[in-house]
Amino acid sequence: MTSLADYQAQRISLIDADLSLRREYLTLHLRSDKEVEADKIVRDIRALEAETIWKADYPSIPHPFPGMEFLTGKSIIMKTKMPKGALLHAHLDATVDVDFMLELAKKQPGMHVRVRHPLSKSNLATNLPEFRMLPQEQLSSVNSLTDLSYPLGSWIPLENARSFFSSELGGAEGFDKWCIGSMSINPSEAYGTYNTLEKIWKKFGSVFQTSTNLFHVEPIFTEYVRQFFRSMIADGISYVEARINFTAKLMCGADGQNNVPHRVWLQVFEKVMNEVKDEMMQQGRGGEFLGARVRIFLFRFLAGLTGFDLVGPENTMQPLIYYAEQLLRFQERQKEESVDIPFIFHAGETTGDGTEADINLYDAILLGTKRIGHGYSLHRHPKLVETCRQKGLTGFDRNEILRLASSMPMHPLPALLNNGVPVALCSDDPAIFGSMGLTYDFFQVFIASEITGLSTLGALARDSIEFSTLEKEEKERALAAFERRWNEFIEYILVEYGRK
Amino acid sequence: MTSLADYQAQRISLIDADLSLRREYLTLHLRSDKEVEADKIVRDIRALEAETIWKADYPSIPHPFPGMEFLTGKSIIMKTKMPKGALLHAHLDATVDVDFMLELAKKQPGMHVRVRHPLSKSNLATNLPEFRMLPQEQLSSVNSLTDLSYPLGSWIPLENARSFFSSELGGAEGFDKWCIGSMSINPSEAYGTYNTLEKIWKKFGSVFQTSTNLFHVEPIFTEYVRQFFRSMIADGISYVEARINFTAKLMCGADGQNNVPHRVWLQVFEKVMNEVKDEMMQQGRGGEFLGARVRIFLFRFLAGLTGFDLVGPENTMQPLIYYAEQLLRFQERQKEESVDIPFIFHAGETTGDGTEADINLYDAILLGTKRIGHGYSLHRHPKLVETCRQKGLTGFDRNEILRLASSMPMHPLPALLNNGVPVALCSDDPAIFGSMGLTYDFFQVFIASEITGLSTLGALARDSIEFSTLEKEEKERALAAFERRWNEFIEYILVEYGRK
Repeated sequence: MTSLADYQAQRISLIDADLSLRREYLTLHLRSDKEVEADKIVRDIRALEAETIWKADYPSIPHPFPGMEFLTGKSIIMKTKMPKGALLHAHLDATVDVDFMLELAKKQPGMHVRVRHPLSKSNLATNLPEFRMLPQEQLSSVNSLTDLSYPLGSWIPLENARSFFSSELGGAEGFDKWCIGSMSINPSEAYGTYNTLEKIWKKFGSVFQTSTNLFHVEPIFTEYVRQFFRSMIADGISYVEARINFTAKLMCGADGQNNVPHRVWLQVFEKVMNEVKDEMMQQGRGGEFLGARVRIFLFRFLAGLTGFDLVGPENTMQPLIYYAEQLLRFQERQKEESVDIPFIFHAGETTGDGTEADINLYDAILLGTKRIGHGYSLHRHPKLVETCRQKGLTGFDRNEILRLASSMPMHPLPALLNNGVPVALCSDDPAIFGSMGLTYDFFQVFIASEITGLSTLGALARDSIEFSTLEKEEKERALAAFERRWNEFIEYILVEYGRK
Repeated sequence: MTSLADYQAQRISLIDADLSLRREYLTLHLRSDKEVEADKIVRDIRALEAETIWKADYPSIPHPFPGMEFLTGKSIIMKTKMPKGALLHAHLDATVDVDFMLELAKKQPGMHVRVRHPLSKSNLATNLPEFRMLPQEQLSSVNSLTDLSYPLGSWIPLENARSFFSSELGGAEGFDKWCIGSMSINPSEAYGTYNTLEKIWKKFGSVFQTSTNLFHVEPIFTEYVRQFFRSMIADGISYVEARINFTAKLMCGADGQNNVPHRVWLQVFEKVMNEVKDEMMQQGRGGEFLGARVRIFLFRFLAGLTGFDLVGPENTMQPLIYYAEQLLRFQERQKEESVDIPFIFHAGETTGDGTEADINLYDAILLGTKRIGHGYSLHRHPKLVETCRQKGLTGFDRNEILRLASSMPMHPLPALLNNGVPVALCSDDPAIFGSMGLTYDFFQVFIASEITGLSTLGALARDSIEFSTLEKEEKERALAAFERRWNEFIEYILVEYGRK
């Protein structure tokens, strides 16, 4: 008869064999005693909070559970001090608090606003503001969007529109709320109003359409980028690969002239980055920010192709194979010109199995993508999982607000982690979902699995640096800086939450 | 430069490598031309229906989509004629239409009913009927459960209670509705009222508690079992492994005496099975029904262990490892007695990762389970997936009503199919969910993936026979019978839906 002791031994070895592919297992034997202790502490806190925090009922949240729909549960989640490594997949125009962007806009005398339909209490959520910088303050006989005599479609200076916003609609405060709502998605919209993939993508699109005329104004853009860096640093992120959509040819200057070319956008980005770096140096925190790079992409529905990713809802737009010939030619041209602009494709951002969006995974990999953006359906493909384990990396975001997972327990991430696929957590469009930084993302991953511990989070953060487009030397520097901060973080846990 | 033609060739070979583990790929080259054609026909119908049927709005179903929450979308799904192979995981006490069971109960003069709290419109859903067979018709001065003078908790003959059910609560029809509701789960309950794992399991438990006193009455049981066989056959199922819970020691006889032992239950099961077999023979349909077996199991929370599965919510009850010593001894005793009662454990019926319910998968496999009941979290475990691919089999049900997947696109099944794990679709508790037979289950699988075609369904049906507990010879006979019916089904598709 198999003794219980023999059985226990077999059991440990089977569990070990099953989990041995996980990235953190590669370095488990290298962990310091302190990390082992800190890991135990945070696991205990998780278990305790599962009972004390997540089983309590909150006035606005009837049945919370760890890993619940993010927008609903967000207010329960607190910020952490963990160093997060790199943020590799975020769309620059959706990375800064919408409130902050609106404040920047208010400072521009040339910023105007209009509506095309009469505003009323019942249509505030769908009758959205249009913004535009104009060469000089427009003289308008009417100063309010909500006045009966307001000529629909005419531009009114932002400050006037705000000051004279009807008190029935909440006055100036109501105006701010209306603007912010037009550029973000709230829980009842995400899980109620726009409860299908098509509808939520439509709302998602309208958010960008509204905010783009604020974002594309040089003085706003400049301070926006600065705030982006500062808030990422505050959250423990030390390197960023941001994505800019270059469909708009020109940005608007402070004078309201639409004449700022792409080249200048990149110059502003670099200038601000260097200023923030200096700022950090002067504070003796140089190791906390290693810089940022811009990734360019084009919308999936554009024919001319000059960038290296295509973006838009994969389920309804043309798949990668449609552009295969152009993409192969683009690679060839790079060789001819001796430049290296790697592909970093969105792919598999879908629940479909064998659909075009799912099949994009094959094409992304065959075309030599450096990383896979999302890869939500990747875990279903044994061969691709193997390929990605050996050489690839997946960028992940919660994808739950855009109707893919209904909550973290249904997210495919644990399957990829158990299969040893390197993963970098990404926030994608944090401003729209109100999830600034990466703390929320690391938190959601941490509570979605009992296997996941502190060392898993460390492995994820290291991989985000490892699989960035940083050069070898920069990467080594970034990893060394990370290790220093990681050890400080371990110390912090032990001191703050360890045995007293 | 890689030519587009080269690229296309690489692409086909990558997709092929990725999908080559799938069970139906083993026999793709053996398919008849007719099956290839029929496969194309049903794929075309699926694509057409995705537009015509699933994109339409229905009065009671605002946003249907293929694979939506099952209870909501059920009415859109039609029955098919496909032979389904075997049903390997179904709890006998939840396999027959609740309406049918109530009709059987009405025929028993000894059947009585009571409530413990006054019935009202507002508490009908939670103030449930209790049923009981009593030795002789109880004389009661009050004939109605809803009369003001009804002494709470006293037994009233079922027929009286029904006839005199208050017209305010719907009269006799309202009585039927109330009884049926107490023994099944409807969409608004599944997705609204009981919207957490704990709550839906509680409702699930109360359903069994109510129905068990009808089920455990010999004359009802007899006709229930007959109806079970007949309805399975009508749905194209030709062999069944049913589970009976043997916690109740005795069943009630027609005379209201509680004295029918387990041995007799099994005799009734076998007697009715043989009668139905004869019935089918006489109709010249002998090949359509090959029989049934009973599997015994015990509730997880019972200490004494005599059966070979444990059942109950895995997330809150004791895990398999808790019983490891007893289970090892049970195996040893079987060897000593030269009997063979294989383990067929429930395991991994959870969204958890590394939780006790998830870890049950390791123990089920180490203890040599013949199949895994549910295995909802199996796809996340690379080593276990490999083991199951080589020798195992997973039983699956939609698991969506019990809060695991929110809809088919989020179901882990496609991941297992792509990994080549043999799967048998099972209906588990069809009566409670109103999903009699396996048609709904095959349909949901078919529409949840574009990779899945007719031949996938055939492979699933064949595997349900292959991995049953039938002896070698019986199995061969069952498979041969299946092939005959499968070819008839192909013919039917070609004739009915093929080019006219």
